[in-house]
Amino acid sequence: MQRIAVDAMGADGAPRVEVEGVVAAVRESEIRVVLVGDEARVRPELEALGAAGDPRIELRHAPDVITMDDAPSMAVRQKKKSSMRVCFDLAKAKEVDAVISAGNSGAMMACGLFVLGRLPGVERPAIVTSLPTRTGDCALLDMGANVDPKPTTMAQWAVLGSVYARLLHDKPRPRVGLLSNGSEEHKGTALTRETHHLLLAARGQGALTGASRDPGPEAGAAFEYVGYVEGRDFFRGDVDVVVTDGFTGNVVLKSVEGAAEVIMTMVKEEVAKAGVLARLGAALMIKPLRRLKHKTDYAEYGGAPLLGVDGVALVCHGGSNARAIATAVRVAGRFAQSGLGQESTTAVAQHAFLWNGDAGRGGGLSAAEGGVS
Amino acid sequence: MQRIAVDAMGADGAPRVEVEGVVAAVRESEIRVVLVGDEARVRPELEALGAAGDPRIELRHAPDVITMDDAPSMAVRQKKKSSMRVCFDLAKAKEVDAVISAGNSGAMMACGLFVLGRLPGVERPAIVTSLPTRTGDCALLDMGANVDPKPTTMAQWAVLGSVYARLLHDKPRPRVGLLSNGSEEHKGTALTRETHHLLLAARGQGALTGASRDPGPEAGAAFEYVGYVEGRDFFRGDVDVVVTDGFTGNVVLKSVEGAAEVIMTMVKEEVAKAGVLARLGAALMIKPLRRLKHKTDYAEYGGAPLLGVDGVALVCHGGSNARAIATAVRVAGRFAQSGLGQESTTAVAQHAFLWNGDAGRGGGLSAAEGGVS
Repeated sequence: MQRIAVDAMGADGAPRVEVEGVVAAVRESEIRVVLVGDEARVRPELEALGAAGDPRIELRHAPDVITMDDAPSMAVRQKKKSSMRVCFDLAKAKEVDAVISAGNSGAMMACGLFVLGRLPGVERPAIVTSLPTRTGDCALLDMGANVDPKPTTMAQWAVLGSVYARLLHDKPRPRVGLLSNGSEEHKGTALTRETHHLLLAARGQGALTGASRDPGPEAGAAFEYVGYVEGRDFFRGDVDVVVTDGFTGNVVLKSVEGAAEVIMTMVKEEVAKAGVLARLGAALMIKPLRRLKHKTDYAEYGGAPLLGVDGVALVCHGGSNARAIATAVRVAGRFAQSGLGQESTTAVAQHAFLWNGDAGRGGGLSAAEGGVS
Repeated sequence: MQRIAVDAMGADGAPRVEVEGVVAAVRESEIRVVLVGDEARVRPELEALGAAGDPRIELRHAPDVITMDDAPSMAVRQKKKSSMRVCFDLAKAKEVDAVISAGNSGAMMACGLFVLGRLPGVERPAIVTSLPTRTGDCALLDMGANVDPKPTTMAQWAVLGSVYARLLHDKPRPRVGLLSNGSEEHKGTALTRETHHLLLAARGQGALTGASRDPGPEAGAAFEYVGYVEGRDFFRGDVDVVVTDGFTGNVVLKSVEGAAEVIMTMVKEEVAKAGVLARLGAALMIKPLRRLKHKTDYAEYGGAPLLGVDGVALVCHGGSNARAIATAVRVAGRFAQSGLGQESTTAVAQHAFLWNGDAGRGGGLSAAEGGVS
């Protein structure tokens, strides 16, 4: 049975949305939760839902809170009794299998680095998110943790993203693309061109192994590197993983959310302006449109995991509602069960030839053990 | 009466889409067109539409074509008889008031630089596009011409974008934002932080002039600098101009197009799966949805102008259809008439204090005359 630590003080609507989400999650699944936050504020919310005595929810008092204004690395070191930091300490002590928080995402990253630590061979962790495409899910990373990564770090993200897509999206050999402003090789920035050069080695290795679906140490790259991709390509479902720097990833995600919002608003406005028949038409379409909203609603995706740290941590949107928190709790349980951490460690070691400049196979494990960071 | 040079060989469907678009444009408006391309291919298309003898369309033979594979600056220098280059030569010689092409956009930029030349004080031209928001149009630049601009160049784009928004979108004092991964000052990259620092001087100057709606040399910044903005902000209509580097701008535009496409496809799929009533509902909604498509359809926007060159040039999508070309021809006419070039020159000179590190006013004109590039 999975145990998840939930930071009760992170969301804009904290602690109510966290408490409601947690209560819903334990009632719908086998998961147990350690709810961490200011007891004086959290307990009344539990009582209001008749869940104060629920054995599946353990309330752990944390007197302090990391706010959006706190400088991440400072806050993590100094606010040792903050709800977020206590959650990560529980994960480090193996008292829980995963952590979720809708608080300061920079502080989440800092907690991941300082408390959990990086996986061997990973220079910087990344935040990954799932976007709905025409053919399923596409994993996009980094979503904002690192605005200025090195090419070697981006190559590591290709590996981490492909493990994520394999385990969580059931893609046996994920197609990985590098986000750029055009598909031709001369496009992109110095960063994308250098990363492309590193990842081309994966293509060579992949070719050696052909149809292998069970990549072991001898199997070469466990993903297919397709080269540069554009925004149109990944929404069409041409790739399973898109790698980009945290600045571009964050800007793209928020722009797409903004565009989706404006399209939905325009639809509503057009319908309101239209005649009775069209309004009737809209009413008849409500059910299919609701299914669509369900599909595109980021609340459904339940948080973006931090990849490359030694543990499972999910970053939730500050504006999360109770449903988003409930989904995140369930998703965190799936992540913890999936073996993502162990599989990532193995994959990073196996693919170290990509960033160590060692085009030969077999040297991966020892190179990663030596550490590239 | 405006005369527009149209490159007949640029679009994926060239020369048919260009000829159809031009014929539609001259029949709907007062505009005259010089159609430049391979006579043996263009004339039959004109004849097919009964427009071979139309006095409003002059056919100018150009035997060569710049392709998507051509290296831009090389092509512009060597392919002097290409349809694109001939269009720009006509503009340079003042035989036409504007140029449009759906060909290689890098070559368009190179033609702008080498044939038309930059406006005084502008380091690099930018491609600007309009995005529909909840409250009107938002100008976004650069859309892909410069992947690695300097902060001073980005500050110049803020000025060029604000002139564009004032003249073409009727915004008397445009609100200008800098695209970033968060609104806090510590967010962004080294590039955005340095640009932000330069643009803060505009805010100080703007405060001096308060409600001035007619910015002259003494009026300080002719726009309101609002600081960092995110994708959500500009789709909500919180700003009139968004400045970003060409890599990010291009990636955002294509991602948003991809997202809009996938949303529309999902709507169709949901409706097809739904019952008879919902399909009836969808049929009744067709009219309002068509109006919406009209509003969000980039073909309607008719090309993205090159700002900062000494002349009017519009970059059209390679996949343009005849309607997009027709719109571009009309928009080019509006641009030529708007005085965009002259107003841009004046505005760049007036705002030189932003990138010359001269916080005092009044020094703008002479600094720009001296040239910053």
